Amino acid sequence: MEFLQCISLKAAQDLVVRSLKRGAAGEEKVQLIDAAGRIAAQDLFAGENLPPFDRSTVDGFAVNSRDTFGAGEAVPVLLSIVGQVAMGEPSLQELLPGQAVAIPTGGMLPSGADAVVMLEYTEQMDTDTLLISRVAAPFENVVKKGEDVSSADVLVKHGQTIQAQQVGILAACGYSTVPVYKQLKTAIISTGDELVAVSETPKMGQIRDINSYSLGAMLKETGCIVTCMGIVKDNYEEFVRAVSWAAKNSHLVIISGGSSVGARDYTVKAIDALGGVLFHGIAVKPGKPTIYGMAHGIPVFGLPGHPVAAMMVLEQLVKPAANFLMGKETRQQGVTVWARLLRNIPSAPGRDDFVTVHVKIEENSYVAEPIFGKSGLIHTIAEADGVIHIPAEKGGLYTGDLIEVALLKNWLREEEAF
Amino acid sequence: MEFLQCISLKAAQDLVVRSLKRGAAGEEKVQLIDAAGRIAAQDLFAGENLPPFDRSTVDGFAVNSRDTFGAGEAVPVLLSIVGQVAMGEPSLQELLPGQAVAIPTGGMLPSGADAVVMLEYTEQMDTDTLLISRVAAPFENVVKKGEDVSSADVLVKHGQTIQAQQVGILAACGYSTVPVYKQLKTAIISTGDELVAVSETPKMGQIRDINSYSLGAMLKETGCIVTCMGIVKDNYEEFVRAVSWAAKNSHLVIISGGSSVGARDYTVKAIDALGGVLFHGIAVKPGKPTIYGMAHGIPVFGLPGHPVAAMMVLEQLVKPAANFLMGKETRQQGVTVWARLLRNIPSAPGRDDFVTVHVKIEENSYVAEPIFGKSGLIHTIAEADGVIHIPAEKGGLYTGDLIEVALLKNWLREEEAF
Repeated sequence: MEFLQCISLKAAQDLVVRSLKRGAAGEEKVQLIDAAGRIAAQDLFAGENLPPFDRSTVDGFAVNSRDTFGAGEAVPVLLSIVGQVAMGEPSLQELLPGQAVAIPTGGMLPSGADAVVMLEYTEQMDTDTLLISRVAAPFENVVKKGEDVSSADVLVKHGQTIQAQQVGILAACGYSTVPVYKQLKTAIISTGDELVAVSETPKMGQIRDINSYSLGAMLKETGCIVTCMGIVKDNYEEFVRAVSWAAKNSHLVIISGGSSVGARDYTVKAIDALGGVLFHGIAVKPGKPTIYGMAHGIPVFGLPGHPVAAMMVLEQLVKPAANFLMGKETRQQGVTVWARLLRNIPSAPGRDDFVTVHVKIEENSYVAEPIFGKSGLIHTIAEADGVIHIPAEKGGLYTGDLIEVALLKNWLREEEAF
Repeated sequence: MEFLQCISLKAAQDLVVRSLKRGAAGEEKVQLIDAAGRIAAQDLFAGENLPPFDRSTVDGFAVNSRDTFGAGEAVPVLLSIVGQVAMGEPSLQELLPGQAVAIPTGGMLPSGADAVVMLEYTEQMDTDTLLISRVAAPFENVVKKGEDVSSADVLVKHGQTIQAQQVGILAACGYSTVPVYKQLKTAIISTGDELVAVSETPKMGQIRDINSYSLGAMLKETGCIVTCMGIVKDNYEEFVRAVSWAAKNSHLVIISGGSSVGARDYTVKAIDALGGVLFHGIAVKPGKPTIYGMAHGIPVFGLPGHPVAAMMVLEQLVKPAANFLMGKETRQQGVTVWARLLRNIPSAPGRDDFVTVHVKIEENSYVAEPIFGKSGLIHTIAEADGVIHIPAEKGGLYTGDLIEVALLKNWLREEEAF
């Protein structure tokens, strides 16, 4: 299979998305504490004003700001204390000119008041008399009703992942449960006569089933529910049964392995028998022998057997598909940083290349060092900080180029020990 | 409480870590598929060589490279085919000079062979005779035993978070279960007479309990198991009982709210009664009224009532403490990017300031725009992309400064719609 017979990465990505229905995973409601990391199934409107009342931001006295005009250290203003606002209680008292009310941080401003003077700029002469030694500007130390959130605001947009720091604002607006897309049910089938289970000791010529775990872990991180169906040996009837069962019980099926021509043939033949193959072969390195199709109307990816190639294709094709089925509106797939390249990287035009890199910090900016090694060596991805993409129209990258690195780790900064 | 009476952030962080025992959460074994995101409880050694045998990276013929010297399109070399290597089977046959063996990608090289010639550079004359039209270099198309991973390699270091893309290499080395630190049991108590449950409609003067949810979601993201104990009204006996129960049933306790002087007093008094207060007040904005101590030997944080201040202190003090208790070796807390500042930010020297920012991409680099707003407005953090830290020794930052931004979102790149 030559690269010329393969379709481009862009064409493959478009074809995959066009073959799917956005949000096919369905919707559910989850408890607010479990909402972070899930995808909003609708625009989450505030529905109310925050704060719901004019609120003090300090401990002090609520006043009418006009009453403080001209106040200073030398010429304090005199007001009568007519009560106090209790935390969590409404302020029913109407403040008249010349009056002040004690108020705690977070307390509700009484009507008639429009500012709060901090405790330290006041002096209480007796229970009824207050000296104020500083002018209060209108709305000083006050958050006005609706100033934080207005009831028409959208807190999280449909199709966006809910971030941990957005959970607070959802709580503030009364979302005890949140409508989200369901987690996608995915099934992984490993194939290959050379594979043995992770718990087994491989005999000569055998290797352990890596892909079920690496692909499973990456899909779980994306928010999927993963069923590892284990290893199906190269027996066609058994293989078709497994793919058929997986398609009937999942939203997405991944067939991993089968890097031999025979196993690839099985995958193509099985998908054709259960639905149809949409493409076979993509102009991507690593990842060329990728197969995509439908079985019982469910998307099925046949990924390369090489662990690194399988992970790269998962990242580029399967994760966007999973996110699309889970209702996501954007392809966003993590954090990227710009880095200076420390070495030349050759690449063939007409093919999208993905190269793993180490990322380091030099003089407040990032540098990227390609991890070279024979194709398929798993340490090249296990120790990588990120991946760079050399697009099909480029014939390689040069030392010093400023490149975008998609980070593989969920942290990246100078490590500071405890 | 003036900033002068407060201890510095650095002093607070050091005091917290010195008061704790690293790894106090304890250890357990988890299934490999669940290991990503967990912290390794020991150095995870490879224990075996990968590959465990010399392996072909292509479909072709295994040969002794010396037999191909001088081969070319015009002058092919002639070898006798003496068998084929089956996938997943050991190659027991010893290759003699002048012989070749058919081998699939991933197949085990027979002894006597040191290279593989790709199918496309061979021609099979009959079942026994092979023409080779290209020289094979020693170890061409071969991954040598141990070339990927050597048995003495450490795959994941003690105290490091296991990344999804490291799960594959653990599978390859036979880790069906992985020793990790247990998830930390944390309890959150909300205090404040003004608070009502998220499911309730606040009456005038009341607000919903935000912090249980925002802090809980952030701690869950850090890998903790969170128990929200709900709202304890400002009743001292009830409060002490709640803190005592929490300390006896958790590894870490968070008391949130109590921004009023009375509530702060309760927190200090309760911690003192159950153990002892270690500090009260930190020179951090926002976050000044932070309390830390021990109850029944368990760390207890009294966080500010302002939701944004509480989240900032959680990030700077509580998360590192949680990670330390979960055995983490480094303070790493996510991804940072460098960005040019788009506005001046004033700051008082002697105080560590944290300011939320929007991060955008302009001409292949990041720019950061501070989100201004009155202290405590929750939208300032809900819509933020990241946070910048103005250290105590600085008197503010200036437009154009290159600053480090700690990202709050787990994605950040130009959004590309499907």
